[in-house]
Amino acid sequence: MSDASQRPEARAPRGFIDRRARDLAAEREILTRVSAVYERYGFEALDTGAFEYADALGKFLPDADRPNEGVFALQDDDEQWMALRYDLTAPLARFVAQNWDALPKPFRRYAFGPVWRNEKPGPGRYREFVQCDADTVGSARPEADAEIIAMAAEGLGAAGLATGSYVLKINNRKLLNGLLATAGVTTEGQKLAVLRAVDKLDRLGPDGVRLLLGEGRKDESGAFTKGAGLDARSAQAVLAFTAAGVAGGRSETLDAIARVIGGSAEGDEGLEELSRIDRALNGLGVGADKAAFDPSVVRGLEYYTGAVFEAELLLDTTDEKGEPVRFGSVGGGGRYDDLVARFTGERTPATGFSFGVSRLASALRAAGRDLGGAARGPVVVIAFSPDDMGAYFQLVSELRAAGIAAEVYLGASGMRPQMKYADRRLSPAAVILGGDEIAAGTVTVKDLDLGRALSAGVTDNAAWRTERPGQQTIPRAELIPALRRILEA
Amino acid sequence: MSDASQRPEARAPRGFIDRRARDLAAEREILTRVSAVYERYGFEALDTGAFEYADALGKFLPDADRPNEGVFALQDDDEQWMALRYDLTAPLARFVAQNWDALPKPFRRYAFGPVWRNEKPGPGRYREFVQCDADTVGSARPEADAEIIAMAAEGLGAAGLATGSYVLKINNRKLLNGLLATAGVTTEGQKLAVLRAVDKLDRLGPDGVRLLLGEGRKDESGAFTKGAGLDARSAQAVLAFTAAGVAGGRSETLDAIARVIGGSAEGDEGLEELSRIDRALNGLGVGADKAAFDPSVVRGLEYYTGAVFEAELLLDTTDEKGEPVRFGSVGGGGRYDDLVARFTGERTPATGFSFGVSRLASALRAAGRDLGGAARGPVVVIAFSPDDMGAYFQLVSELRAAGIAAEVYLGASGMRPQMKYADRRLSPAAVILGGDEIAAGTVTVKDLDLGRALSAGVTDNAAWRTERPGQQTIPRAELIPALRRILEA
Repeated sequence: MSDASQRPEARAPRGFIDRRARDLAAEREILTRVSAVYERYGFEALDTGAFEYADALGKFLPDADRPNEGVFALQDDDEQWMALRYDLTAPLARFVAQNWDALPKPFRRYAFGPVWRNEKPGPGRYREFVQCDADTVGSARPEADAEIIAMAAEGLGAAGLATGSYVLKINNRKLLNGLLATAGVTTEGQKLAVLRAVDKLDRLGPDGVRLLLGEGRKDESGAFTKGAGLDARSAQAVLAFTAAGVAGGRSETLDAIARVIGGSAEGDEGLEELSRIDRALNGLGVGADKAAFDPSVVRGLEYYTGAVFEAELLLDTTDEKGEPVRFGSVGGGGRYDDLVARFTGERTPATGFSFGVSRLASALRAAGRDLGGAARGPVVVIAFSPDDMGAYFQLVSELRAAGIAAEVYLGASGMRPQMKYADRRLSPAAVILGGDEIAAGTVTVKDLDLGRALSAGVTDNAAWRTERPGQQTIPRAELIPALRRILEA
Repeated sequence: MSDASQRPEARAPRGFIDRRARDLAAEREILTRVSAVYERYGFEALDTGAFEYADALGKFLPDADRPNEGVFALQDDDEQWMALRYDLTAPLARFVAQNWDALPKPFRRYAFGPVWRNEKPGPGRYREFVQCDADTVGSARPEADAEIIAMAAEGLGAAGLATGSYVLKINNRKLLNGLLATAGVTTEGQKLAVLRAVDKLDRLGPDGVRLLLGEGRKDESGAFTKGAGLDARSAQAVLAFTAAGVAGGRSETLDAIARVIGGSAEGDEGLEELSRIDRALNGLGVGADKAAFDPSVVRGLEYYTGAVFEAELLLDTTDEKGEPVRFGSVGGGGRYDDLVARFTGERTPATGFSFGVSRLASALRAAGRDLGGAARGPVVVIAFSPDDMGAYFQLVSELRAAGIAAEVYLGASGMRPQMKYADRRLSPAAVILGGDEIAAGTVTVKDLDLGRALSAGVTDNAAWRTERPGQQTIPRAELIPALRRILEA
């Protein structure tokens, strides 16, 4: 056709992937199951558009020089900057502010859909991925946090994570804030530096974090990270706080925290909130095996104002080399009371939980619970003769009516491409309806799961028919039961 | 908080809408049901990313002056232009070209997801909407068209359109091409002008179209539209062709078409293809009540090369003023053999069907089959006392475990906001578990569907308890059966 040099190269944009049936089946199954749980908790579905005005996203106001800092932004024809949402929380805040008067309050909604990040792509790191969020807006009660936590646990369970294979770790920002206030730390910058240091506990251990809480730390490469500037006693208090998690249970951990944070109004508020979360979780039947208090949990986002929680996979998983790896977080959330106020000027309490759907699918795979495992191809009816197409189509109609996925092969003729096709589709069976079979009222069924290995060397129709691996000729009336047996094997 | 003048206005971008639970429930139900049909036909799911490189979309190469002509485009940090997909066909063509060697052939895939059009928004006309497509790539057989048509019919039926409330109208571009070749019309421009004229049959009738096929037509406003320039005899032949549809059945229509199009190689090819589609549809059990031949069908897109089809709603629907309106097309498709060749240089036969999910949901509503009708709120457990929260949460846990959507009210206290909340959520029932009830082992259930009207005037707890519209106090053990009765009523 056209000159090759003028033809575009067929390639997906950097950082964007095409997902095939198997992955999609797993992700859709997760979303179906989690949605059912969320609706049973009284959360209603909401879908906002892909774009928000850049000022509503709140991250920044793009300028002509760097309109794409972190987000995909473009200017509409009325000169307003729009950007693709980078999460589902900012659009929720906009929606709630826009529709506040008409909404039921509290407003409990869940949502799922793609979000976009204009970041450097890398292995397993995409610029588009599907998130699933649930939030309660308009309730300051800690019980609203507890409901979100209980629902997150039940959602993870419904998706296939057995109890014991994950835990929701809960903390409260007010505890550390109270502790820091007692220690005389009041600037936001210093608080953030403390949070960032604590967030590295897993990686650096208490000694490394102690350095980051104090003057700073030099890593193996010799690079120096400036510390939060706490004195030794305050740093020790922070470390004692983060270590106050007790395996025994939630109330034991609360007691341990109370002993180390000392008395401050904000700290006491945090304790009281966690205590109410504990009671509500007990009422909801959620034990410490599913939701535990852990003072070392930070959650990166600066906008959290109270309870924070993180869903952690507890399974030991292995990488491609068979080395054990910690899978880590599969989702998280917390209380953010300031996002709606950006629009309305009125503080609006809110709390929510979010997870990445592909990441949860990976976690389930790591846990040996791949929901996409059942993604099989259709039964393929082999096309021998153009004259018999009507008979083939009648046959597939019967199979489909019986709920069996089936199709007539419609590609190039010849036995080899047909079998190759059925193989690539992971078809459970091929059905042969030749002239002889039609005349005799029979049909030949080839079990492809059984015969796949044997039939690899097949080159033509005649040879294949002689070998007949896993193949049987049966009366037409017995076809559907025979296929069911193959499908259920 | 902040100065009001510095706060962004909470508003969705122009042409983008927020969709609430009711609409989403209907659309998800459509996608679930249609996906099940498509998978039963052997089509596998595929999801490509939101972006394509602009050259792969093929519509245009954006330049710095007008990067957003028709699509939402932006320049990646490596200078390449990317654009949000405006349909699901162009990404499919790119995907197939990119992965041709590894794909099963023919490649049968379905997909659904948002597409974006950078067009002027209007009432009911959005810049983002969800499409659902199914295509077979790599089969030139007319039977592949027939399968798509049969599957589209079954999909519409599964979504809720009864037989007789819609019809798939089928035509073939080669028929008109053959007719025009016989009439001496060979330029693409003139062919397109003929197609555009025929496409106006519904609106202008045969006399108006005759003018557009000839010199041109002046409308009521006096504006003149230049015609296709056919002579009177050719124009008559085109009109006779478009009128050749016969109510009797597909083979009768084929006979009628054969009589009017005269002999041309391309026309005969078109007839032969339709004849094979007819036979395959018969094998698939799809009668003319579901799929008929109609030579007046055009389908706008220029890229179609053979069979074209359009799903038309046959119901008489009414607009807001009660005036009857024809709903018209709910989807369409056809054969396009050139799209993949843009990348590979090799002609790759393909055929597909596409529908807009919101539009089908509207059609179903117009047909009285609103799938979102069941979108009800949860049972609301009224929160009286902070001390009894544990009991409330235990109760909702029991209800959820029984599959009943339920929640404890977590907003501001007082009876009025709680009932208003339950009302806005369209809750079927409120459950009252006061101190007396807890002590007595009972629970009070208020049937809100029954009592909604009566309780509109309620101002406080005491008055409301005296009136008790649709309200009963029952032993706790009878709660779940009682709620089931209300939900099933």
